[in-house]
Amino acid sequence: MADTSRAPRRRYGTRPTMKDVAARAGVGLKTVSRVVNGEPGVTDDTVRRVRDAIDALGFRRNDSARVLRKGRTASIGLVLEDLADPFYGPLSRAVEETARAHGALLIHGSSAEDPERERELVLALCARRVDGLIVVPASDDHRYLEPEIAAGVATVFVDRPPGRIEADVVLSDSFTGAREGVAHLIAHGHRRIGFIGDLPRIHTATERLRGYRAAMAAAGLETDEGWVSLGSTDPGRVRAAARSMLAGPAPVTALFTANNRVTVTVVRELGGRTRPVALVGFDDFELADLLDPAVTVIAQDAARLGRTAADRLFRRLDGVNTAPGTTRLPTRLIARGSGELPPA
Amino acid sequence: MADTSRAPRRRYGTRPTMKDVAARAGVGLKTVSRVVNGEPGVTDDTVRRVRDAIDALGFRRNDSARVLRKGRTASIGLVLEDLADPFYGPLSRAVEETARAHGALLIHGSSAEDPERERELVLALCARRVDGLIVVPASDDHRYLEPEIAAGVATVFVDRPPGRIEADVVLSDSFTGAREGVAHLIAHGHRRIGFIGDLPRIHTATERLRGYRAAMAAAGLETDEGWVSLGSTDPGRVRAAARSMLAGPAPVTALFTANNRVTVTVVRELGGRTRPVALVGFDDFELADLLDPAVTVIAQDAARLGRTAADRLFRRLDGVNTAPGTTRLPTRLIARGSGELPPA
Repeated sequence: MADTSRAPRRRYGTRPTMKDVAARAGVGLKTVSRVVNGEPGVTDDTVRRVRDAIDALGFRRNDSARVLRKGRTASIGLVLEDLADPFYGPLSRAVEETARAHGALLIHGSSAEDPERERELVLALCARRVDGLIVVPASDDHRYLEPEIAAGVATVFVDRPPGRIEADVVLSDSFTGAREGVAHLIAHGHRRIGFIGDLPRIHTATERLRGYRAAMAAAGLETDEGWVSLGSTDPGRVRAAARSMLAGPAPVTALFTANNRVTVTVVRELGGRTRPVALVGFDDFELADLLDPAVTVIAQDAARLGRTAADRLFRRLDGVNTAPGTTRLPTRLIARGSGELPPA
Repeated sequence: MADTSRAPRRRYGTRPTMKDVAARAGVGLKTVSRVVNGEPGVTDDTVRRVRDAIDALGFRRNDSARVLRKGRTASIGLVLEDLADPFYGPLSRAVEETARAHGALLIHGSSAEDPERERELVLALCARRVDGLIVVPASDDHRYLEPEIAAGVATVFVDRPPGRIEADVVLSDSFTGAREGVAHLIAHGHRRIGFIGDLPRIHTATERLRGYRAAMAAAGLETDEGWVSLGSTDPGRVRAAARSMLAGPAPVTALFTANNRVTVTVVRELGGRTRPVALVGFDDFELADLLDPAVTVIAQDAARLGRTAADRLFRRLDGVNTAPGTTRLPTRLIARGSGELPPA
């Protein structure tokens, strides 16, 4: 639902220029330049008129142009969920390599899955005049970014879509990937399959759950609500969920784990059991192939997500002015053993 | 070897103030403030005198103070070797948490082990007026940083020491850790032990090699030069080194791998062999305990390295003015199985 109470949103790439400011203030370009760069030789009254025009137009001095003159570098901001989650390592590196190819520095921060912290961080980056932003959102309402986007800060979301605004977004196809992973377990004879996922307010968590339900429904299988657990990736929470699904008279015979943090904890939990439990995890992870059994995964290409988002951002910064769009990258099932175990 | 040709280095925390600039230019504090903030009402001649004084003193406007007035945030720069190396994940997160507790943003970049790229990145961060820097150095000559340090950019090195300048540094005790790991293999009966490490210009690589040699010498063991291989962490290079040491009539019976990237590749190489080879790796890594055999490691505390470096940096920014110092954090041997295998 868009907020229609404010002025029409300015489109990407149409940020006001110094020329617009000069025209509105009724002064010459050189005078605007003096005021913007804090040079002397302008009367107080003229400074006031120029500043009013700057405020009215939402003008923002273009750092990239200043780089050329002053040897300062351009920069883009990258806001992730957690710097220590290995999923974001290749994504960050790919964004950095692309930024570097464009001569831009990377300003990096993480939200720790806290919407308020995401907002603070994004606005702090804007205040530091980044040229663009790549955001893995924790929030589900990004209307706070509208004035920044209108003022010309190119913004691309990655891994998860933005909330309540339209913007470019690059995603993995979580729904299709999860559906395929669960169908794979069904194809190997499982009928009672558990789903352990991330917090329900996270888009990828609900998309992957939707994939699970779609695969179960397509096979005509009932889903017991005790087989679905969404929550934090805290190992204690995940272990308790797994234990609960594996207990009782009709335990699940297979688990679908909806991200790499959950999968690693479930691998530890299953390691202590004598009865084999089949497992497919969303996200590949290092050494998955060397475990016993090796872990079958739905792999996403984290580096490609980062590279695609960064390419999109720099095209925007180069002035490409098409409507915001969504890119969905395919996932890939890698069968390694754990997902091919038959029901116990 | 210090460069003594330049003016005496200014010590940390003694950065020139606006008051110093005002005194040198022979103007009032308010006038300096006007020039620095680009406000009108100052004659061209006065602007010139103030700017000359700023240049002569190496004055740098204090961003932290401006935060309070203008709502812009302070920032620190973090330069790593590789954003995608999982060792740096917890280190980055610890630095970010500390920065956040001090209200500062983190500007992040990686050198990809290229000294020239490190230099470019560090100077670009300084040009963006970071308040301080935490650097995992790729270079062995940091004299290029002296003017920045003199101008008040607090700088702390982490994981590896700086080259040719004195500065705060926080390290793991690589020498002692490697010596202990190799002594552990010797205690389990090994006499022919190979060492596979990182590039010889990297301080941790040579310190860990020194630990290997010390342990071998302390046990009265000869070291065949064919048992030592330093080079990139490229998997092909590491596999070839392992194969070479494990071939021939008198192969090594154990390997010491000097960082987590090398260890993971060697685990893959050993996985395909029937004759067991003992292994101790420097750095712990996720799932090391679930492999077969589980991997014995010398663990460093990456989060503590990051936290200690960041604490040091913010103490400097708070004006603590003691001489630069070196902090060495202890490592810890975690015996899990691979390091306790007897010689084949």
